[in-house]
Amino acid sequence: MPLDPADLTAALIRCPSVTPEEGGALVFLETHLSAAGFTCTRVDRAGISNLFARWGAKGHPRSFGFNGHTDVVPLGDPGDWTMAPFGADIKDGFMYGRGATDMKSGVAAFVAAAVDFVTDTPPDGAVILTITGDEEGDSTDGTIALLDWMAQSGEQMTDCLVGEPTCPDHMGQMMKIGRRGSMNAHFTVTGQQGHSAYPHRALNPMPAMARLMDRLSSHELDTGTDHFDASTLAVVTIDTGNPATNVIPAQTRATLNIRFNDTHTGAGLSDWLRAEAARVDAEFGTKTTLQIKISGESFLTPPGPLSDLVAKSVQAETGVTPELSTSGGTSDARFVKDHCPVVEFGLVGKTMHQVDERVEVAQIHQLKSIYSRILRDYFAQ
Amino acid sequence: MPLDPADLTAALIRCPSVTPEEGGALVFLETHLSAAGFTCTRVDRAGISNLFARWGAKGHPRSFGFNGHTDVVPLGDPGDWTMAPFGADIKDGFMYGRGATDMKSGVAAFVAAAVDFVTDTPPDGAVILTITGDEEGDSTDGTIALLDWMAQSGEQMTDCLVGEPTCPDHMGQMMKIGRRGSMNAHFTVTGQQGHSAYPHRALNPMPAMARLMDRLSSHELDTGTDHFDASTLAVVTIDTGNPATNVIPAQTRATLNIRFNDTHTGAGLSDWLRAEAARVDAEFGTKTTLQIKISGESFLTPPGPLSDLVAKSVQAETGVTPELSTSGGTSDARFVKDHCPVVEFGLVGKTMHQVDERVEVAQIHQLKSIYSRILRDYFAQ
Repeated sequence: MPLDPADLTAALIRCPSVTPEEGGALVFLETHLSAAGFTCTRVDRAGISNLFARWGAKGHPRSFGFNGHTDVVPLGDPGDWTMAPFGADIKDGFMYGRGATDMKSGVAAFVAAAVDFVTDTPPDGAVILTITGDEEGDSTDGTIALLDWMAQSGEQMTDCLVGEPTCPDHMGQMMKIGRRGSMNAHFTVTGQQGHSAYPHRALNPMPAMARLMDRLSSHELDTGTDHFDASTLAVVTIDTGNPATNVIPAQTRATLNIRFNDTHTGAGLSDWLRAEAARVDAEFGTKTTLQIKISGESFLTPPGPLSDLVAKSVQAETGVTPELSTSGGTSDARFVKDHCPVVEFGLVGKTMHQVDERVEVAQIHQLKSIYSRILRDYFAQ
Repeated sequence: MPLDPADLTAALIRCPSVTPEEGGALVFLETHLSAAGFTCTRVDRAGISNLFARWGAKGHPRSFGFNGHTDVVPLGDPGDWTMAPFGADIKDGFMYGRGATDMKSGVAAFVAAAVDFVTDTPPDGAVILTITGDEEGDSTDGTIALLDWMAQSGEQMTDCLVGEPTCPDHMGQMMKIGRRGSMNAHFTVTGQQGHSAYPHRALNPMPAMARLMDRLSSHELDTGTDHFDASTLAVVTIDTGNPATNVIPAQTRATLNIRFNDTHTGAGLSDWLRAEAARVDAEFGTKTTLQIKISGESFLTPPGPLSDLVAKSVQAETGVTPELSTSGGTSDARFVKDHCPVVEFGLVGKTMHQVDERVEVAQIHQLKSIYSRILRDYFAQ
């Protein structure tokens, strides 16, 4: 009898697995997968629980992988929810609960697809599931820990699909083949305090800051590439906190965020920011310091066999041809990309991280069908 | 017997006349001046005490005026003072107390000089003293109230000397013949909030603010005039208060201060600021609003008989030729200038508004001698 992915989703929602709590979710999956013949290994690190499961021979040259997470973000104010946040109650065709879209339904769909597939039509190859409990947190001991352990243990995925929600509005609309990089830069421009009436005795950091932010904002980083939108730079805040109009302040601060495509690297952009700061300092006599944090480099799995396989399955099950996108925030695909080709496809993520997060039950079944077809087509090649 | 201006200063310091408190200071002066033959009128308005005193005939075509104030700024933390703030104690040749330099010593010096002068050598003319209790506050009911009352009452000064401390470092160094104007402008640039990853769906106000502040800061207002330094513009703060690097804020604010010479008017500069804001709004699609406060227009009493008289007296008593300056902050001379020619001369103001404010006792005597010589020379002409 085929596994019902909606039942699996409901069981997972009832596990209160707010990061870093395992909440029973991975224990539940391990039980099911072991019973279905998967070799399961708990890869826990630094208080975080992770699950590795493989059906088929270790190191098989056709090892298809799925990646996902069972941890969820906090509820916000529980009083704002109209449905039980860990209840998995269904109303008007939607199942409610934290993680309903992000991404217990996705995990349930690929677990159900994988178990049914290896049970009904055992392939010549391996199916590998990497499921983490640290995607919504720091992500330092989640998928990274799984990939580290796999490298040490000789485990290898040939290709990988991350089951994160990828569709903005309707099912099948979009898959992700990469992501832009993201970095923040914090600037502090220092001059010398003084009286507004005697600016020549002070060194006002404000004009240098204004010039620097104008230049950085005006600069066109690029015009986009084949698979990426143009890189963007947003000055998000400038703050001085000087309440006295007769005082020239000694210091002012600004922060900007850059989302960059494969034209750039975090290091290259850091060099550019430092050079522009030095140029302004030379013009004004100020001293500018930078703190830079690179959240992630851009990456791309170029369109090819893996994206074709996923796109065709989506098209066959939904009638919709998914757009190959690199938009949006980060996901664990940024770690998997160092291991093997990776793409992302999942259902509609509209209510993720929100109060009354919910998933259309029909979409869970549709997603299982898509993942099942991907497995069939992959091993039929 | 000549009046001792140091004793007068001490008596005034012992009156706790923090604005708007009269503290007994004007009552004390009124008693002394009445006894010396001055016609005294208390010109109180809106809870503020002011004193008008005239020796000689009302409306005399040679009516020399002095202007000053007996109110003082607050103590700050009284525990920071090493001497009693209202004690007028003398140590190492310095008299300590709030108002010691700003400007109870100045008032004492011109009161002593005026009383001795009219007593010893009654002139053919009038000596007028306008002493206010609202110079350190809003200044709306102080010297303005006195001048209003004088206009209504047919009282007129031919020339006026304001006794504020004017010397930066040593006695006789500087007199003031005018002041730059001062204005503050508060800018609010409004765009539309959004996510840093999708700046094209937002309208970031930060680049417009940076461009505007860069342009305004870079603009040379003028290169100075015969008696004025170049006008200055100082951006004193830019504030946004957005802690989230993934959020483009809807709004940001900035404040700038302009000190302007006789090339400009507050209205002309306001027009320029509004035009530059509109130009940036046209470039970026933002909406910028301005709040402008003009604290005072620039003014000048051109070098002539009055400044010559004062400079010669200073030179004769100190051996120092005073610089004719228009530097510094505002004073009540900005009101008197609409009534008659006005200059400012007083002692060294180094410790004004500070903890342990103090005046060199010898300087009080020197100041009385200078004011006495001014009166002698003025009426000898």
